[in-house]
Amino acid sequence: MIYLDHAATTPMRPEILEAMIPYFSERFGNPSSLHSYGQDARMAIERAREHVARAIGATPQEIIFTSGGTESDNLAIRGMLRGKSGKDHIITSAIEHPAVLETCKFVEKLGHEVTYIPVDRDGRVHHSEVEEAVQENTRLISIMHANNEIGSIQPIAEVGAIAASHGVHMHTDAVQSVGKIPVNVDDLNVHMLSISSHKLYGPKGVGCLYVRKGTKLTPLLFGGGHERGLRSGTENVSGIVGFGEAMRLAVEDFAENTRIRRLRDKLIDAVLGEIPHTRLNGGKEHRLPNNINFSFSYIEGESLVLRLNAKGVAGSTGSACSSKKLEASHVLLAIGLDPVDAHGSLRFTLGRDNTEADVEYVSEVLPVIVDELRQMSPLYACRDDGYGKPE
Amino acid sequence: MIYLDHAATTPMRPEILEAMIPYFSERFGNPSSLHSYGQDARMAIERAREHVARAIGATPQEIIFTSGGTESDNLAIRGMLRGKSGKDHIITSAIEHPAVLETCKFVEKLGHEVTYIPVDRDGRVHHSEVEEAVQENTRLISIMHANNEIGSIQPIAEVGAIAASHGVHMHTDAVQSVGKIPVNVDDLNVHMLSISSHKLYGPKGVGCLYVRKGTKLTPLLFGGGHERGLRSGTENVSGIVGFGEAMRLAVEDFAENTRIRRLRDKLIDAVLGEIPHTRLNGGKEHRLPNNINFSFSYIEGESLVLRLNAKGVAGSTGSACSSKKLEASHVLLAIGLDPVDAHGSLRFTLGRDNTEADVEYVSEVLPVIVDELRQMSPLYACRDDGYGKPE
Repeated sequence: MIYLDHAATTPMRPEILEAMIPYFSERFGNPSSLHSYGQDARMAIERAREHVARAIGATPQEIIFTSGGTESDNLAIRGMLRGKSGKDHIITSAIEHPAVLETCKFVEKLGHEVTYIPVDRDGRVHHSEVEEAVQENTRLISIMHANNEIGSIQPIAEVGAIAASHGVHMHTDAVQSVGKIPVNVDDLNVHMLSISSHKLYGPKGVGCLYVRKGTKLTPLLFGGGHERGLRSGTENVSGIVGFGEAMRLAVEDFAENTRIRRLRDKLIDAVLGEIPHTRLNGGKEHRLPNNINFSFSYIEGESLVLRLNAKGVAGSTGSACSSKKLEASHVLLAIGLDPVDAHGSLRFTLGRDNTEADVEYVSEVLPVIVDELRQMSPLYACRDDGYGKPE
Repeated sequence: MIYLDHAATTPMRPEILEAMIPYFSERFGNPSSLHSYGQDARMAIERAREHVARAIGATPQEIIFTSGGTESDNLAIRGMLRGKSGKDHIITSAIEHPAVLETCKFVEKLGHEVTYIPVDRDGRVHHSEVEEAVQENTRLISIMHANNEIGSIQPIAEVGAIAASHGVHMHTDAVQSVGKIPVNVDDLNVHMLSISSHKLYGPKGVGCLYVRKGTKLTPLLFGGGHERGLRSGTENVSGIVGFGEAMRLAVEDFAENTRIRRLRDKLIDAVLGEIPHTRLNGGKEHRLPNNINFSFSYIEGESLVLRLNAKGVAGSTGSACSSKKLEASHVLLAIGLDPVDAHGSLRFTLGRDNTEADVEYVSEVLPVIVDELRQMSPLYACRDDGYGKPE
């Protein structure tokens, strides 16, 4: 099976599993315990915290471990709201992950205001539009570093500078970018940044929120006061150890992205050259090195994913999170696709395990499947020339 | 090392680790993905859900996987609050875990009301006091099944009946009771029940909230709509698989509790017989089979834990969560101890790995350590006879 869905999740690297294993049954202590088992677990967590911090140019005290990217995003947004007093304003983009968008929708229900900044055809926010949206009661700007569906990279440093100049807090969801493009919290000008371990070959169920020193945040989970009071709950020690290793290895193997980018470009060129009525969604310039997102006119992305699966290729229609919903992708609609074309989308996201042979195989198999599906499509039969042509 | 801190956390059973391992690097899919990797992960989760449900007499659809007990408690309490409209009332007990107490304190800051029901000398709530506390705007009663420090078991079925008769929702934190005493959601008359995997030989970082069919709850984490919309975030597949196994094995090995109870009673009798000025905190009748909590007058629990650790015994002063705080245990104060005696407390919580030999060793070592510490204590030197005597 050829796995091309690394934006959904990644296979854990065996060396990460090896690092975690002692922390299940032997070094199993609760980090809050005073005895040796507890202190041993505490040290393991603090070591992992250093790995995570170093990878993004932060200090260990600024890393708050969470259960993953979704919790980090929820904490960053809701943690910024002031209690009962008054209406807060949040600025975000139209193409955020549901962990941000749905939290914003909930926040609106609580009586706060949210502005959703549109994106251009390449899936990028213009920082001038963010600046225009700033109001007196703006508390937070939350814009993702790189999009999970089309891989577009946002001008976070510029938006962060705008936030800073207006005294507004800046959060970015860096779940898709960490390990793939440089992520440094100072260069990006952010107060908060979300990371998920399982997107970078670490375990599921763990992640962190970077919280810049001095940033005041209301916790989402109350209890024993873990993580400097910002995230209660017994620490997921083995998970945190694995996450720390994943971050350390992501830095160490950063050059791997060059190889992946080359593979990706080869696959893009092959598919655009071979299959008519196909477009690449998102621009080529500001794009994650491992992301491909095609629209094939006249067919359904879901059928395509299932047929590819039968041929031994694991791809996706968009984000895994929304794959069970029937609505067209909010990201593809935001970059201007009509709902029909948005339904014919296919995402390939490459990873360390992919090879030249994988790309060659997919380049052979995909045109056949697309053609088969189009032959069955009434839309394809009735097409007029020039509609849905590749750009 | 003899581990007697099973209420803080437990060593993972090797067979559970074995069940989890395939789900890290091989069967690593995101359960929301349409391809085979995703569907395989989805099936693993649903199998685990059945194990968890069966163990507590629930249906699989009523199990919402979370990152652990703290998140489950937070979700149960905050999920019950109505939006902006009006003031809600919650009834809880004075000896809840911080995951409930601190959430309640936050809820008060939001403008809601909370009543904290006191407990008797044995650490038990009287259900008549709960009934008296019910008001017109009472939304939720949240009372723990068994206490984490002194092991006292609460009359949840009776309180649940009161809740039902007033049309109020009932939640119980069963983190300490599951696997040790019978836990059945119908017998207990509850709408919601929290479980943590790592307290029953499963992995850390995973747990669940049982939510009775028809119970309306506002999510705490918004995003991709996982767990029937009640808990977004990519599922911690390996963790959930381990949790499922842990629940299955807890039911299978339930009889083990009889052996543990016998060991516990032997240790209690040995210590009370050997060490003067000692009391057992909490009653003997309604008590978890593995819990011991002593107060040794004239000494500090923390010094005791550290000396025991040096002699190869891992115990605790109370809950691991609050062991870093210097305040006396809120539980021990609630059952009527004065702050000085509350500071001299020691908790032993036994588990499947403990043997007769462990108990014998501790019975020999503990009196020596207590005596050494008392010899150094100015309070002990100035004691008047009869103060702090065992009861």
